[in-house]
Amino acid sequence: MLHIGIIGAGRIGKVHAQSIANYVRTAKVTAIADPFLTDETAAWAKGLGIASVSTDHRDIISDPGIDAVLICSPTDTHSAISLEAIAAGKHVFCEKPVDHDIGRIKEVLRALEGSKLKYMVGFNRRFDHNFRAVRKAVTDGKIGKVELVKITSRDPEPPSAEYAARSGGIFLDMTIHDFDMVRYLSGEEVTEVYTQPAVLVDPAIGQAGDFDSAVITLKLASGALAVIDNCRRCAYGYDQRAEVFGADGAAICGNDRESNAQTWTNTSEAREKPLFFFLERYMQAYAAEVMEFIDAVVNDTDVPVGAHDGLAAVRIGIAATQSAKTGLPVKVGE
Amino acid sequence: MLHIGIIGAGRIGKVHAQSIANYVRTAKVTAIADPFLTDETAAWAKGLGIASVSTDHRDIISDPGIDAVLICSPTDTHSAISLEAIAAGKHVFCEKPVDHDIGRIKEVLRALEGSKLKYMVGFNRRFDHNFRAVRKAVTDGKIGKVELVKITSRDPEPPSAEYAARSGGIFLDMTIHDFDMVRYLSGEEVTEVYTQPAVLVDPAIGQAGDFDSAVITLKLASGALAVIDNCRRCAYGYDQRAEVFGADGAAICGNDRESNAQTWTNTSEAREKPLFFFLERYMQAYAAEVMEFIDAVVNDTDVPVGAHDGLAAVRIGIAATQSAKTGLPVKVGE
Amino acid sequence: MLHIGIIGAGRIGKVHAQSIANYVRTAKVTAIADPFLTDETAAWAKGLGIASVSTDHRDIISDPGIDAVLICSPTDTHSAISLEAIAAGKHVFCEKPVDHDIGRIKEVLRALEGSKLKYMVGFNRRFDHNFRAVRKAVTDGKIGKVELVKITSRDPEPPSAEYAARSGGIFLDMTIHDFDMVRYLSGEEVTEVYTQPAVLVDPAIGQAGDFDSAVITLKLASGALAVIDNCRRCAYGYDQRAEVFGADGAAICGNDRESNAQTWTNTSEAREKPLFFFLERYMQAYAAEVMEFIDAVVNDTDVPVGAHDGLAAVRIGIAATQSAKTGLPVKVGE
Amino acid sequence: MLHIGIIGAGRIGKVHAQSIANYVRTAKVTAIADPFLTDETAAWAKGLGIASVSTDHRDIISDPGIDAVLICSPTDTHSAISLEAIAAGKHVFCEKPVDHDIGRIKEVLRALEGSKLKYMVGFNRRFDHNFRAVRKAVTDGKIGKVELVKITSRDPEPPSAEYAARSGGIFLDMTIHDFDMVRYLSGEEVTEVYTQPAVLVDPAIGQAGDFDSAVITLKLASGALAVIDNCRRCAYGYDQRAEVFGADGAAICGNDRESNAQTWTNTSEAREKPLFFFLERYMQAYAAEVMEFIDAVVNDTDVPVGAHDGLAAVRIGIAATQSAKTGLPVKVGE
Repeated sequence: MLHIGIIGAGRIGKVHAQSIANYVRTAKVTAIADPFLTDETAAWAKGLGIASVSTDHRDIISDPGIDAVLICSPTDTHSAISLEAIAAGKHVFCEKPVDHDIGRIKEVLRALEGSKLKYMVGFNRRFDHNFRAVRKAVTDGKIGKVELVKITSRDPEPPSAEYAARSGGIFLDMTIHDFDMVRYLSGEEVTEVYTQPAVLVDPAIGQAGDFDSAVITLKLASGALAVIDNCRRCAYGYDQRAEVFGADGAAICGNDRESNAQTWTNTSEAREKPLFFFLERYMQAYAAEVMEFIDAVVNDTDVPVGAHDGLAAVRIGIAATQSAKTGLPVKVGE
Repeated sequence: MLHIGIIGAGRIGKVHAQSIANYVRTAKVTAIADPFLTDETAAWAKGLGIASVSTDHRDIISDPGIDAVLICSPTDTHSAISLEAIAAGKHVFCEKPVDHDIGRIKEVLRALEGSKLKYMVGFNRRFDHNFRAVRKAVTDGKIGKVELVKITSRDPEPPSAEYAARSGGIFLDMTIHDFDMVRYLSGEEVTEVYTQPAVLVDPAIGQAGDFDSAVITLKLASGALAVIDNCRRCAYGYDQRAEVFGADGAAICGNDRESNAQTWTNTSEAREKPLFFFLERYMQAYAAEVMEFIDAVVNDTDVPVGAHDGLAAVRIGIAATQSAKTGLPVKVGE
Repeated sequence: MLHIGIIGAGRIGKVHAQSIANYVRTAKVTAIADPFLTDETAAWAKGLGIASVSTDHRDIISDPGIDAVLICSPTDTHSAISLEAIAAGKHVFCEKPVDHDIGRIKEVLRALEGSKLKYMVGFNRRFDHNFRAVRKAVTDGKIGKVELVKITSRDPEPPSAEYAARSGGIFLDMTIHDFDMVRYLSGEEVTEVYTQPAVLVDPAIGQAGDFDSAVITLKLASGALAVIDNCRRCAYGYDQRAEVFGADGAAICGNDRESNAQTWTNTSEAREKPLFFFLERYMQAYAAEVMEFIDAVVNDTDVPVGAHDGLAAVRIGIAATQSAKTGLPVKVGE
Repeated sequence: MLHIGIIGAGRIGKVHAQSIANYVRTAKVTAIADPFLTDETAAWAKGLGIASVSTDHRDIISDPGIDAVLICSPTDTHSAISLEAIAAGKHVFCEKPVDHDIGRIKEVLRALEGSKLKYMVGFNRRFDHNFRAVRKAVTDGKIGKVELVKITSRDPEPPSAEYAARSGGIFLDMTIHDFDMVRYLSGEEVTEVYTQPAVLVDPAIGQAGDFDSAVITLKLASGALAVIDNCRRCAYGYDQRAEVFGADGAAICGNDRESNAQTWTNTSEAREKPLFFFLERYMQAYAAEVMEFIDAVVNDTDVPVGAHDGLAAVRIGIAATQSAKTGLPVKVGE
């Protein structure tokens, strides 16, 4: 029985705790920590049978009974807590991104060198049934050599300008998932990126120095291409689609809905909108993700998404940010 | 150059004239006759280059320059005019049904015995691209031995009760197309029919002695089954779909639309309604149908739908009508 | 905390135990009984934390610590165990059908008269997201007054002839779900049924006195119609679809797939087959079903599917069986 | 009756002649000219009733009986013949592009100044039912202010390297249609373009100095974005799709197929590939296009696509070509 501590009791920390309670018999969440822990959250933790509740994440780091930690705290704490956890000999599952600073991600990588600890980065979309099926079509050779990856990724509702200002920018906060998806679907590294950014949704986001819309073109190591379109607001809900074109065909996937029911009337034939946002669309993916992390720890196998994947995505995000500033294509650094 | 006379200048007569003008270089409509010919229709005929316009169909029958006639007059004149045309040595394309009376259809069959004249019945749906593709999947062996044919056939708007009263009843007027489609898609004869009829749309149609809705179950010669659902009114337009189930799979087809565009908004993802009614949905099928008739005459090949097909469909229609009256399953007569 | 005993540790008993373990915090399975209990099943029960494991269901009935029982044993034991459980003051969730004998279902109904015990029948499809969305479109008035319900229900693989012989026949074993679905989607009672049965898949099933294919036409209390097509074998997987037509439109639903990914190549554009069978398609529905039963017990509210629903479906099944024997339409008994 | 001369009897010249013969009663093709006229083409012209057949286009230009000319000759002759035709007082329909040289297009514009002659450029896709429906959703305000236009445009089979070498390059030969489509769907001018080009299909095309694949990002006058993906080879056929995203939703359209039939088997649920190439997909669009040109001439109304539209698309194409060479974003010239 693996004992797990969760650091950060926000939305995503709760999702992971619930997934483990529902689906995992080989692991148990025994502690949760959050500096802003409410009574409500404490009661929720009790209800799930989580024995220890704290406002200090060091209570988890220093608990010898805990084997693995899930880092679900704010982004700017990820790398520091990662280092503490590794130093304490704990396996780590860290929400994306590891850090916005390449140097600090490399510190985490160095800390892991020679260690047998597992370190997994939470790119949840890799565990989505649709994207997995597209990836499988690619690896099964159904579409031949990959030539173009197209990703549509549009959020239903924009964040506040305050959030945008603190987020590291759209490319490190939102597009980073899509950069990882390009790597996942193509199986290739990104070598160059050009972004055409825009502020079309909320001028306040622009005044905060960020963008709310963008088209991003990428070049892959083999010479293949990729393109991502992002928007922070989408009237019909969370739009998460991919198309991969190869020499012998294409593999595509679309959005999920609450049901596939349709209503046909004298105005149109209507089906439901896509699921609203990431908690709805990726709920099963989050469960699969944390289960794979636990499996990797329990069975001592490779994690499906490692620290170097976290590094690669941030590198692309930094190049994209620079491209948005300069208006020029930018090589992705080594 | 084949010279064609059209008897009946209603909607469908005009469709055929137009199709020949647009698409056929080996035939020419030289005469049209209709007892209720309007000035407007006469002008339309002139515009199409039809030399002779008359109120008496015998002007066409007796014209030695005419090789073939298209009978597009009211149903109760079909068999009589067919006999006249055959006697005059003309090839005949006759709109469905040949007659509601089996005896009179047999007279037409007898008149054709030993003759080299072509006689084709206008089951236009056999020439529709979708139904043809389903039939091809069946004959190509894609779905194995046929076990069930399902046909959805729903008109957008009900006829008047007066029309219903004169129509021969829903099974001979409307379902007859679906009976032919069952035979076409399965390649089998129908041996037994049971109808569950209802008046759900317009009580006046019930008072006129007819029905406006029905589910019809059929047994085929091989033991396979078929089922048809009909309604004289359909809020979202003309619903014309088929599913054929076999031992190895199913072949299905759906409705056509003006375009495949969709609009995604915060209420739903909507696509267009199906094309409104038979003139919209089957316009290309009508053209293909008349072209195949002309080809068969010009090249002396078999017509794709013969008088015996017309007979078979009416026999099923008569059995269905009897089933509706008695509430019992009825064998289809020899 | 509601204490639950499960009688019958076959596939469906295990599904319910797992669902309660995964999703329900207000109830706990404390005992399971099965006369043919294997070591493997006993170990599985232990793993789920089920304290008591037995080969005698009376160990559950007589256990005063158990509040509710789930009857997942063979069909011919359902009504007898129901009566025992009710006599012992336990709430009951009973898999469909309650019994094949109307008289014995009525005994259960009588036993429940005046009691405050909950009694729910396991028509799992009512809890499927797609059928629920269709039902909602109907009750929301989106399609107007219901005129026709069409249900496609085809199993991927036929049972053995031995199973068929003991099953009560296809109409009480398989179609009974569809009869319930007609009642659910229309909100109406069935008054008459006509079946066109066939043996098209496995002659041995016919020799066992049963059928493997059928089209069933139903008349509803309002005069509306319904039609069901069944087959015990379906090459492309479990086919579970519904269409409801009303005066103002139609509501339809289709099959679910593992993912919505498509592969486009030079032969076709292909998407995945439907989910294989009921455990795959209805896994979430089974969970929702048992959760609603527990909610009804805990909160003392009405169960969503009562004993009278079980009675109504069996009545239609008996009439359908009789129609298949006589070849005539049969009124559904009071 | 409008008298039309066609210059260039290749594939597209023949399509227009046939469309006019089939669908237009107010115009007549009376002459056709092609320097490489074959006997076969001469016979075909006779069959269509075209009186005059010539190897010199000046026979058409100088024929006072001809009111309008369709210029379907090689691209490098378009502007010169346009000028001759305008000088001779003829209305002109010119296949795209007018010229690859901005100066020469401007000469044509100058020649038209003050004239009442109609001059239309053949951007056939504007007349496609799907793209028209998307445009209508935009102009009807269904999706709010346009923020992103996405166009997928992939040819089924690559041209020869020889063709590529003479074509003016992929951006002026192939993408020019997509540039026009961005302008059509958005109703906006393009201000900046960045291309990420690649040679992924045929190295010989690269050796000829051209590309066979590209992703092109565009900025529109309002600040909205557009993105196009192109490939000269597509395994599943001609891929012609568009998505327009606005503040209130999205309007999208997909490919057309020969039929909507599907085959469901134990491997997949398959539908047909898209129509093979432009002659199949756009046949109706070509007919609509030439009919609108004739209508504009006959009724003296504005042509739907003028010489300035031809100029705008070439300007974008030239900027795209430059971007591909420099690897930098390029402003679209005035």
